[in-house]
Amino acid sequence: MTLRIGLAGLGVVGGGLVKLLEGPAPKVGAGAFEIAGVSARNRTRKRDVSIEPYAWYDDPVELAENPEIDVLVELIGGSDGPAKKAVETALKRGAHVVTANKALIAMHGAELAALSETHGGSLKFEAAVGGGVPIVKALRESLTGSRVNAISGILNGTCNFLLTEMEASGHPYAEVLAEAQRMGYAEADPTMDVGGFDAAHKITILAAIAFGAQPDYEHCRIEGVDDVSLTDIRLAYKLGYRIKLIAKAERIGAGVALNVRPALVALDHPLAAIGGALNAAVVDADPVGRLTFVGAGAGAGPTASAVAADLMDIASGRCGPAFGKVVRDLLPAPRAAPEEYGRFYMRLLVADRPGVIAAVSDRLGREKISIESILQTPARDLSRDDGRDEGAVPIVLTTQPCARASLEAAAAQIQSLEAAIAAPRIMPIEETHGPRFRS
Amino acid sequence: MTLRIGLAGLGVVGGGLVKLLEGPAPKVGAGAFEIAGVSARNRTRKRDVSIEPYAWYDDPVELAENPEIDVLVELIGGSDGPAKKAVETALKRGAHVVTANKALIAMHGAELAALSETHGGSLKFEAAVGGGVPIVKALRESLTGSRVNAISGILNGTCNFLLTEMEASGHPYAEVLAEAQRMGYAEADPTMDVGGFDAAHKITILAAIAFGAQPDYEHCRIEGVDDVSLTDIRLAYKLGYRIKLIAKAERIGAGVALNVRPALVALDHPLAAIGGALNAAVVDADPVGRLTFVGAGAGAGPTASAVAADLMDIASGRCGPAFGKVVRDLLPAPRAAPEEYGRFYMRLLVADRPGVIAAVSDRLGREKISIESILQTPARDLSRDDGRDEGAVPIVLTTQPCARASLEAAAAQIQSLEAAIAAPRIMPIEETHGPRFRS
Repeated sequence: MTLRIGLAGLGVVGGGLVKLLEGPAPKVGAGAFEIAGVSARNRTRKRDVSIEPYAWYDDPVELAENPEIDVLVELIGGSDGPAKKAVETALKRGAHVVTANKALIAMHGAELAALSETHGGSLKFEAAVGGGVPIVKALRESLTGSRVNAISGILNGTCNFLLTEMEASGHPYAEVLAEAQRMGYAEADPTMDVGGFDAAHKITILAAIAFGAQPDYEHCRIEGVDDVSLTDIRLAYKLGYRIKLIAKAERIGAGVALNVRPALVALDHPLAAIGGALNAAVVDADPVGRLTFVGAGAGAGPTASAVAADLMDIASGRCGPAFGKVVRDLLPAPRAAPEEYGRFYMRLLVADRPGVIAAVSDRLGREKISIESILQTPARDLSRDDGRDEGAVPIVLTTQPCARASLEAAAAQIQSLEAAIAAPRIMPIEETHGPRFRS
Repeated sequence: MTLRIGLAGLGVVGGGLVKLLEGPAPKVGAGAFEIAGVSARNRTRKRDVSIEPYAWYDDPVELAENPEIDVLVELIGGSDGPAKKAVETALKRGAHVVTANKALIAMHGAELAALSETHGGSLKFEAAVGGGVPIVKALRESLTGSRVNAISGILNGTCNFLLTEMEASGHPYAEVLAEAQRMGYAEADPTMDVGGFDAAHKITILAAIAFGAQPDYEHCRIEGVDDVSLTDIRLAYKLGYRIKLIAKAERIGAGVALNVRPALVALDHPLAAIGGALNAAVVDADPVGRLTFVGAGAGAGPTASAVAADLMDIASGRCGPAFGKVVRDLLPAPRAAPEEYGRFYMRLLVADRPGVIAAVSDRLGREKISIESILQTPARDLSRDDGRDEGAVPIVLTTQPCARASLEAAAAQIQSLEAAIAAPRIMPIEETHGPRFRS
């Protein structure tokens, strides 16, 4: 039995998928699939693969409506608009849907999963998170024998590439971003990536599966890499840490906390070694312990491979609820209102004069915060984007575990010191074990 | 619908499984499972969990025969004897089987899978490889969109623990093994682990799934860690490498090469950071690229979690061929007869006299082997188990890529030098990319 595929979206990943499934020697599932129709914004754009053999649809919704299509593969992107319309259309007539669209699933996942359950088609989205890393299936099917407590991931390859390049080249953020854009590693408008939104979509999806809850993107607290400075990367390294954009989902009491933000990881943390555009996810679960998954998080090949694996699941009858449980059994967005508690990194820019460290230490002491390590370095360690020309010197410190609220209070006092030149920069330290939040 | 489980084998893993599935608050699949009977060698042995609520069977085959049992969970172990008999019995009456028995699957997997296909029960063995690491499902279901070229793994936690401890403590193999045995990390008879046989069972199983071939344990070339010396661990580290027991399956032309042996991995290789009893597998596949999976390779919790995930698959109707393809489509043991080619480590023990390095270099040159790095260190770098007391000094070197046969020829010439004290020790260097064999 051949599954007839309608392919909506013919960008890099769509082209990669055509190469896997078609041609004189299909690379996967020989005879299992047939591309029965394609749709994209621009029919005549130059592509790596020929789309001439396939029926063309100007409108992806029309493609999704075609009763000859068994599976809609949606690679258009975007949380609303034609992607959502086409996916809904296919699901409503009982067709299967495979998508790489993280925004769509993070924001409308429960609603779409409900359509899939009502009408009988599968909804699959392995390619939406981690590219080729099979983390969606692992959480949905392999960790059913354990209870997940937390997931920490590096889920956006662009951000990780930028941070890795800043450390390696010593060039500031803006320069490295411009270079990445020239090389095609970052979009012309990089906001979705560097602002942390893409990683937030992905951790929202993983959390939903891991905790059996409805995806709750609105609840995710998001910070990007766009204000990570070279100074912080250098000084954190001197203290034994790397700065990574960490997407984290944690079970806190009966709720779930979702965060995306730059954090320090010790050099021997499993995520510290994840360089360049790689993605990784670390899952802490009981009783299985800690599992780490690493691989290419984007690109035509890895993403097309993940889409093809979903197609093979459908062809083999391995269907089932999109998030591992039927929608009525998913917890309704169990939001935790936790207190953040743990170790922190704080970087100050101060005028180089006697007594500053004593004053800083005093203000921390008033809030009962103990310093774990402290480092003042010469002004030449500052990168130009961090006020080197204004006579500032950096002081960085790490704290013993404390409440973030206390540290913010101390930071406000420090900022009002006469020697303070800029607002303190605070980043959490991601521990190898243990939660960052408490209810 | 409740699946009735017959549990054969009540050791550490069996106890862990009982804890997961039963009691007043089952931790997984609430209501999905019921333990309907148990069997073990010794009914009265002291156990963490009470087996009183369950029907007792002296003979696991009798348990497997019981038509009230839907799934036999086989945790007895051993490639033949009661484990095999019980599994066959269950499969022949169409019951499902979940097993953690790597020896059984590596040696009789095709035959058992055929029974499963004929009679309709599933055969699942996630727990047989990598403990809690979901590598079996990943290869069987998530990599269907790619073509696997090679798998390299650290698949035996005992061996990895011993090597890690030797490096950390500076104690020789025999002492570290004795300590591990006292702590329960190594068996009283450790042969299956330290001889490399357990890792060989596991890589045989992974290769079968990854390459769509019948498991072919007899074809695996096996070397253990029992003659890895502290001297080699220290000197390899000085050259920038760690010694790991690497289980590797490689596609060579139309065949497959299977090897388990100590090899050097560069300190930045993904497997170099895998310490203690952790397991890891690195899969190179096209077009997905390189994927790495890390987690606890043994222990009650991780292994029981993997067994429970297989049970959840069965309860959810996610069945299918044991090795991903039906047995008649599996390639019949496609053995490659490859030439080993790559970089090597060689350690010599020589009398400390002038001209030895020149002679060694000359013998390598005759075989057209180029030296990549060479290091002679003082005799005090030798551990006692390596002839320190006999006036020997070690010379270690790494080669440029060469054929193993050429290196062995050079080694024979070196061994016949008057200054040679012991046979050269040769170990392959595991590259981050690229095959070690060529057809």
